[in-house]
Amino acid sequence: MSKPAVVLLSGGLDSATVLAVAREQGYACHALSFRYGQRHAVELACARRLAGRMGVVQHVVADIDLRIFGGSALTAAIEVPKDRDTTAMQQEIPVTYVPARNTIFLSFATAWAEVLEAEDVFIGVNALDYSGYPDCRPEYISAFERMANLATRAAVEGRTEFRIRAPLIDAAKAEIIRRGMALGVDYAMTSSCYDPGQDGRPCLRCDSCRLRAKGFRDAGVPDPLLRRFGLTAP
Amino acid sequence: MSKPAVVLLSGGLDSATVLAVAREQGYACHALSFRYGQRHAVELACARRLAGRMGVVQHVVADIDLRIFGGSALTAAIEVPKDRDTTAMQQEIPVTYVPARNTIFLSFATAWAEVLEAEDVFIGVNALDYSGYPDCRPEYISAFERMANLATRAAVEGRTEFRIRAPLIDAAKAEIIRRGMALGVDYAMTSSCYDPGQDGRPCLRCDSCRLRAKGFRDAGVPDPLLRRFGLTAP
Repeated sequence: MSKPAVVLLSGGLDSATVLAVAREQGYACHALSFRYGQRHAVELACARRLAGRMGVVQHVVADIDLRIFGGSALTAAIEVPKDRDTTAMQQEIPVTYVPARNTIFLSFATAWAEVLEAEDVFIGVNALDYSGYPDCRPEYISAFERMANLATRAAVEGRTEFRIRAPLIDAAKAEIIRRGMALGVDYAMTSSCYDPGQDGRPCLRCDSCRLRAKGFRDAGVPDPLLRRFGLTAP
Repeated sequence: MSKPAVVLLSGGLDSATVLAVAREQGYACHALSFRYGQRHAVELACARRLAGRMGVVQHVVADIDLRIFGGSALTAAIEVPKDRDTTAMQQEIPVTYVPARNTIFLSFATAWAEVLEAEDVFIGVNALDYSGYPDCRPEYISAFERMANLATRAAVEGRTEFRIRAPLIDAAKAEIIRRGMALGVDYAMTSSCYDPGQDGRPCLRCDSCRLRAKGFRDAGVPDPLLRRFGLTAP
């Protein structure tokens, strides 16, 4: 029987790729998404479709309203920055940073992993072509893993050693895209935009759209999401 | 102006004491509670009353339904153990353990602290007279603190060094009670029971009731909660 794993699935390009990687490694994947008050909740529809298409054992959407704290352009009435240069993005942490988001997501994933008796939690963080978020760096992931192994009954009783798997952490966006395409990921089913239209149409101007466009450009392939909406690459 | 702090407030004896300690230390306290699907949700009414009485700046109750994962007697249809010896409790981790609960709670507290520009998060964990939970031990708290300082923008930009304050971690229950009474905590307003009646009446037989009873016995004072319900000490 295949080993269970929890896979954080936002519905974006990276997490879709991670799900494909985990599946290829033979894991029985339990996908976890969050309705956290994000303005780009259209990604949850993508997560649902991806989970269905990619044969997960189960897909759970946890309701956690992070708007109670505010402090981010993704959850509060702060404008999403547009038209920023992809190099400039890495100079500072932008207002789209959501305080402690990955820590909250990984905490829930750890709880579920413990209940499932899974040792592996997959997350699509990426320290290279990222938007400057602190909770996407390898030293953060290691510190979380260490903490999780002190936090849980399964670990303390020696039944489990939790591993936070971040298979894309060192990869450039183009590399992620190539890897996903080789594994059959349909990127038309993913959503990366921080400020999409009601129908999921990407703005093509936010940091996330621009990083995605650069990734497809560098990979030398067209983004199938653009075709879906009849758009041309920015 | 007094420094802000986030105080995790369950409505139980320990967290009420911690709130009093934080207030005495001069912090402007922002209290955080969780509606997580606990069967003893009556503790939230206690948290609300304590927050009001003890002059917090703000009290937020976050809705996070941990029943989606199950795995604990506190959130699933598993019976709460009764009449266990307080020494026996420390031999194994009981079914009332909620997977990764303190990690989830501290993650939310860290997020709020970052938004408030607070450096201090208070939590009422206790490694001595506890129920054997792994996420109540000093090594866990240190590991969480280290992780939080890698996870957040405020820490990475050098504006904040988060501290997880667990002022009761080494204290016996009797010592906690004496300390709280000296600070004017009204323990009749707190709820510790894992399986209370609709009206908040403690069962007096679960681990938490028994640890509380032992604490008041050792402290040599009556538990005012018993008087409120016309009960005698078990």
